[in-house]
Amino acid sequence: MSSWGKMIRMSVFGESHGKAIGVVLDGLPAGKKLDMEEIFLQMARRAPGKDPTATPRLEKDFPEVLSGLLDDTTTGAPLCAVIQNTNTRSGDYGNILSCPRPGHADFAGFIRYNGYNDIRGGGHFSGRLTAPIVFAGAVCRQILAEKGIRIAAHIASVGHVQDERFDPVNIPDELMQRLSHSSFSLIDPAKKSAMRELVEDCRMHLDSVGGTVECAVTGLPAGAGNPMFDGVENVIASIVFGIPAVKGIEFGAGFAASAMRGSENNDAFYYDGDTVRTRTNHHGGILGGITTGMPVIFRTAIKPTPSIGRPQETVNLTTRQSEALSVKGRHDPCIVPRAVPVVEAAAAVAVANVLAETNML
Amino acid sequence: MSSWGKMIRMSVFGESHGKAIGVVLDGLPAGKKLDMEEIFLQMARRAPGKDPTATPRLEKDFPEVLSGLLDDTTTGAPLCAVIQNTNTRSGDYGNILSCPRPGHADFAGFIRYNGYNDIRGGGHFSGRLTAPIVFAGAVCRQILAEKGIRIAAHIASVGHVQDERFDPVNIPDELMQRLSHSSFSLIDPAKKSAMRELVEDCRMHLDSVGGTVECAVTGLPAGAGNPMFDGVENVIASIVFGIPAVKGIEFGAGFAASAMRGSENNDAFYYDGDTVRTRTNHHGGILGGITTGMPVIFRTAIKPTPSIGRPQETVNLTTRQSEALSVKGRHDPCIVPRAVPVVEAAAAVAVANVLAETNML
Amino acid sequence: MSSWGKMIRMSVFGESHGKAIGVVLDGLPAGKKLDMEEIFLQMARRAPGKDPTATPRLEKDFPEVLSGLLDDTTTGAPLCAVIQNTNTRSGDYGNILSCPRPGHADFAGFIRYNGYNDIRGGGHFSGRLTAPIVFAGAVCRQILAEKGIRIAAHIASVGHVQDERFDPVNIPDELMQRLSHSSFSLIDPAKKSAMRELVEDCRMHLDSVGGTVECAVTGLPAGAGNPMFDGVENVIASIVFGIPAVKGIEFGAGFAASAMRGSENNDAFYYDGDTVRTRTNHHGGILGGITTGMPVIFRTAIKPTPSIGRPQETVNLTTRQSEALSVKGRHDPCIVPRAVPVVEAAAAVAVANVLAETNML
Amino acid sequence: MSSWGKMIRMSVFGESHGKAIGVVLDGLPAGKKLDMEEIFLQMARRAPGKDPTATPRLEKDFPEVLSGLLDDTTTGAPLCAVIQNTNTRSGDYGNILSCPRPGHADFAGFIRYNGYNDIRGGGHFSGRLTAPIVFAGAVCRQILAEKGIRIAAHIASVGHVQDERFDPVNIPDELMQRLSHSSFSLIDPAKKSAMRELVEDCRMHLDSVGGTVECAVTGLPAGAGNPMFDGVENVIASIVFGIPAVKGIEFGAGFAASAMRGSENNDAFYYDGDTVRTRTNHHGGILGGITTGMPVIFRTAIKPTPSIGRPQETVNLTTRQSEALSVKGRHDPCIVPRAVPVVEAAAAVAVANVLAETNML
Repeated sequence: MSSWGKMIRMSVFGESHGKAIGVVLDGLPAGKKLDMEEIFLQMARRAPGKDPTATPRLEKDFPEVLSGLLDDTTTGAPLCAVIQNTNTRSGDYGNILSCPRPGHADFAGFIRYNGYNDIRGGGHFSGRLTAPIVFAGAVCRQILAEKGIRIAAHIASVGHVQDERFDPVNIPDELMQRLSHSSFSLIDPAKKSAMRELVEDCRMHLDSVGGTVECAVTGLPAGAGNPMFDGVENVIASIVFGIPAVKGIEFGAGFAASAMRGSENNDAFYYDGDTVRTRTNHHGGILGGITTGMPVIFRTAIKPTPSIGRPQETVNLTTRQSEALSVKGRHDPCIVPRAVPVVEAAAAVAVANVLAETNML
Repeated sequence: MSSWGKMIRMSVFGESHGKAIGVVLDGLPAGKKLDMEEIFLQMARRAPGKDPTATPRLEKDFPEVLSGLLDDTTTGAPLCAVIQNTNTRSGDYGNILSCPRPGHADFAGFIRYNGYNDIRGGGHFSGRLTAPIVFAGAVCRQILAEKGIRIAAHIASVGHVQDERFDPVNIPDELMQRLSHSSFSLIDPAKKSAMRELVEDCRMHLDSVGGTVECAVTGLPAGAGNPMFDGVENVIASIVFGIPAVKGIEFGAGFAASAMRGSENNDAFYYDGDTVRTRTNHHGGILGGITTGMPVIFRTAIKPTPSIGRPQETVNLTTRQSEALSVKGRHDPCIVPRAVPVVEAAAAVAVANVLAETNML
Repeated sequence: MSSWGKMIRMSVFGESHGKAIGVVLDGLPAGKKLDMEEIFLQMARRAPGKDPTATPRLEKDFPEVLSGLLDDTTTGAPLCAVIQNTNTRSGDYGNILSCPRPGHADFAGFIRYNGYNDIRGGGHFSGRLTAPIVFAGAVCRQILAEKGIRIAAHIASVGHVQDERFDPVNIPDELMQRLSHSSFSLIDPAKKSAMRELVEDCRMHLDSVGGTVECAVTGLPAGAGNPMFDGVENVIASIVFGIPAVKGIEFGAGFAASAMRGSENNDAFYYDGDTVRTRTNHHGGILGGITTGMPVIFRTAIKPTPSIGRPQETVNLTTRQSEALSVKGRHDPCIVPRAVPVVEAAAAVAVANVLAETNML
Repeated sequence: MSSWGKMIRMSVFGESHGKAIGVVLDGLPAGKKLDMEEIFLQMARRAPGKDPTATPRLEKDFPEVLSGLLDDTTTGAPLCAVIQNTNTRSGDYGNILSCPRPGHADFAGFIRYNGYNDIRGGGHFSGRLTAPIVFAGAVCRQILAEKGIRIAAHIASVGHVQDERFDPVNIPDELMQRLSHSSFSLIDPAKKSAMRELVEDCRMHLDSVGGTVECAVTGLPAGAGNPMFDGVENVIASIVFGIPAVKGIEFGAGFAASAMRGSENNDAFYYDGDTVRTRTNHHGGILGGITTGMPVIFRTAIKPTPSIGRPQETVNLTTRQSEALSVKGRHDPCIVPRAVPVVEAAAAVAVANVLAETNML
């Protein structure tokens, strides 16, 4: 289903070329004053057209709140926000009904829905459906910010070009603030030109490229989360894989830990004043599914945009013949910069839910 | 919580040194004849003491089925299996109350449960709790086998020593059969000696080492799963992170896809007789959260066993002083071989649930 | 929360005097052609102003479908429908902030939401929120109708004036058809005048009156539902108590069974051709939570509309003094006729979910 | 499924004549010291053989706690309790395979599970499965008692013989204490002889009789619960219909409210010192799904025990002929007295879950 969460529930709806997309966010605490400008700003970070690396297609992506807010303050009732679909050129997608695009959900969706799903623009599988997630996350992160919890992500890599990584034991608030308000989030801004060059190269070659996003949550208290299947890792992973193009997630040292020795990977505890902290943070702020009070850090793998202009081999489901397909339309050669606010938003919703499950929200 | 699943629900209970551990498995179809020997065999793969790399502690781990089976056939009612705890030496763990072990859930659990959780042997966070998961998975995989669905995993790496990878488009049944019945599962058995050497080296140095497990699910029909948050990746990840020591998961090309170009990562469709297949399988059998009919392939990162004999820095929560801790007791220097059947089992429960959600079980 | 269901999930949002109300319906099978006229007709049955017994307030209640439908056919993606709020006179409700209306959720909601809930017109607790439920039910009942499953309810009583009851073993399709398309559903239409007289008497005395609604589901196959907490009774009750003013539910003989002897209440089985049926239907089509193939029959108690013009005793939450309150505005002296399509709708959603959980949808 | 609850989850397992029955209770707060004697006492209230009206079959029903408790104190991990099945005479039920017993789940279960369910003694549908519910409720009520919340029920009627009702605005603690520790709970103990006489009359005539149970929850704070489908009524109903033989539930004035006028049914608010209370309690402590701080009161209808010695008409599913069936074995002619602690227990689990959902546990 397209709904998620136990105590904070997010129900996403819409298709890329339908009337509208949107989200219902239920279980929010009442009486939280929201900064609507900040929400629009977060949505603008995800919106296309902000950056030369992104598609020139203009979307207004302006969310209209139908319920759950009174004087910009949460009422405790489900908050529904709707974003109208405009400026969509359905004609660009004319041949995808019979010929599934490689790397897209066209074929899987066709089988799953017996051919009845709306395939225009990817329908419900479209990356456009991340806009409501950003809205929901923008709401949740404001509620979390009241408790000193901050969430920020950055472009950890585009292709082989890498940004620096978070210092996992010391992430300043200013960095969190800067990253979470940037439209091309980098710890080391000097990496921007190399990344853009690579993206431009892909665009020139009618190709695309993937990347990774690293996300940090700071200010989390120790003791949040539940064991086994309701652990913080389970909860974050279960929402993050809802972002199209995500193919992997790792927490703390992640896959690198698999090549370490225990003496290297274990994080030593010490007292920093009255607070127990760890000297390193290979555990990514989570042990046994439960927060330790150290920053929660995870990385996600974003595959290259599947829509590319180059001819690709596919099948015609009607004629049962092979066919060459060139995906037309305007597409981002690299969606990683725009994935950053989406990953942050998903993390925000996940963390709000974890805290609500542990009576901490 | 320690319960998981919408249509197939698995509730795990128990603490390492309590009376017993076990599982309730609800939502199973009725009338499925189970091969109990095969179930015990799967549990034996996980049980310690089978292999020189594993702890010499003997556990019987013999599951007693309390309900849900009649003449070894599922009744449709919840199936409960209990495994008694025996041969535990609580004395070995005398000092962990005050001094949380680095890399363990001791500290996080202490905060979460206000010091009331059972810490002996890790309590509910113990790796021993994976035994009920293996039981549940052994039940589910038999039901899946009836539909031609097979699940097998192997030790993809221990430290830097790597096994071969699955050929993602062609995984023979014989390989699946061999791997899923091995106690040290390797595609290339010749890698065993190098891995064992490494593990022995860790043992000699009172250290431990991590690794990765690669898992394949073959025979899955296309069209299983749901979009966004109920996708096959979400569902598998949400259960796999319930296995202690798992710190990462990737599907198909996973993190490697983040460095690829779209033209490289996209998998071309073709007709193999009447069946649509892809020439490569970077998507790991899942697009848009839904199966394509290609093998589902994922890898998990297993961190090194946190229990090591070397002295480590930790804190004394009572005196608030730093302290050196040497974890006593018998511990696997490498749990990766024993993690293999657990990952398979988790995948089996996840896949059974996915199929049940899509009316395919 | 305001979302319901495991396999068919309904998320209701909105406040009486907010911008809009609506519903997201997830988990629907794809490819179901919907008769939109029939949906509007069902919504018209619930809409006020259709009948002299109802409030003269005009609502258009016209649902706009934002997603999940293409050419009036379900796509399998979440279906969202929105109903704009118009023609509301907020001024009518000016005094309820400080003085909770007896019989309303004002006080409970004030405590629950720390005074931040939207109280205008009852906010999220308003009976107006049943309009989205009717929409969702109208969708589900069309899908059920394809399988020969029909749902109809009638006004079983208004005050002490009673309609006939369903013959529980023999409910003709024509009766089901007639009741489910009537705006004042009665098995015996001759009861209408007595009921209306009673309602008019209440209106004259600035009072209101309650009643009961009896609902039948015919054509259900035997074997649907799950034991214990997922039984058909549990599932129906859990949704029906979501209808404001419902204070009780009983299945089959219900409370009357509590005064019977076993020999009287037990329903004898017999073969009707190849079909096992029962000679009586005190069990209301459900035994052990599972359908028997006999009609599912339940009755709900609807309390009198709490909004009455008579002065009532309440408290002023600001001054902490007692106060006399006369609820102004236009209110139905009897909502039972309009509750009929809502109960049918809730039953339709519940039954669709039960069937989906049992692989029968 | 046989598992229930969002924040407090109860998973019941077992079949009447299998090895054992039991329950896993997850989500409990850690550090709650349990009085095990009090738990056994509650289970003894439900156990048969305590009273002349009950079956002479002796069950030990002694729960063994496998996990979740250390020194009788909750650890926060899932609490599993198992009750061995002993003293069952399977021979008594030899003919029910082919001939479903009227009023039992035999036929519905046979269809649902394709004949694979364990039918001995009713299998998973047996009333014996209420023993684990009583255990779970006994745990929850102790945790609630710490907050001054008390739960008690009484035999409101057996056949036409009625007990007094709770005074809905004034229920003394001593009454709650007495009722919740009685094996034949009556507000007016003088009604016991008439009830027993009626039950004896049924036994003499190889028949049975139903009744009603009225349950009160006192000491609940205002503001607990959620709107629409997570209201207190929904939550209580969804668990109470999991008790075999329950065919109806009503809150506050319930069905009687349907015959009232608004001016009569509405409950006037007033200040009792600093506390807002209502002068009457027709709303049963719940408005809009949320508690008002007044006692929560509900009544359930219990149908007559379907197992009766008299010959009844049924079918032989093998021969497809009608057959006369006399249910052999020892059966309670009236299970209402034993249903009292079960209803209390279900209410306790429901209330604990409601409070946990509202951050009040």
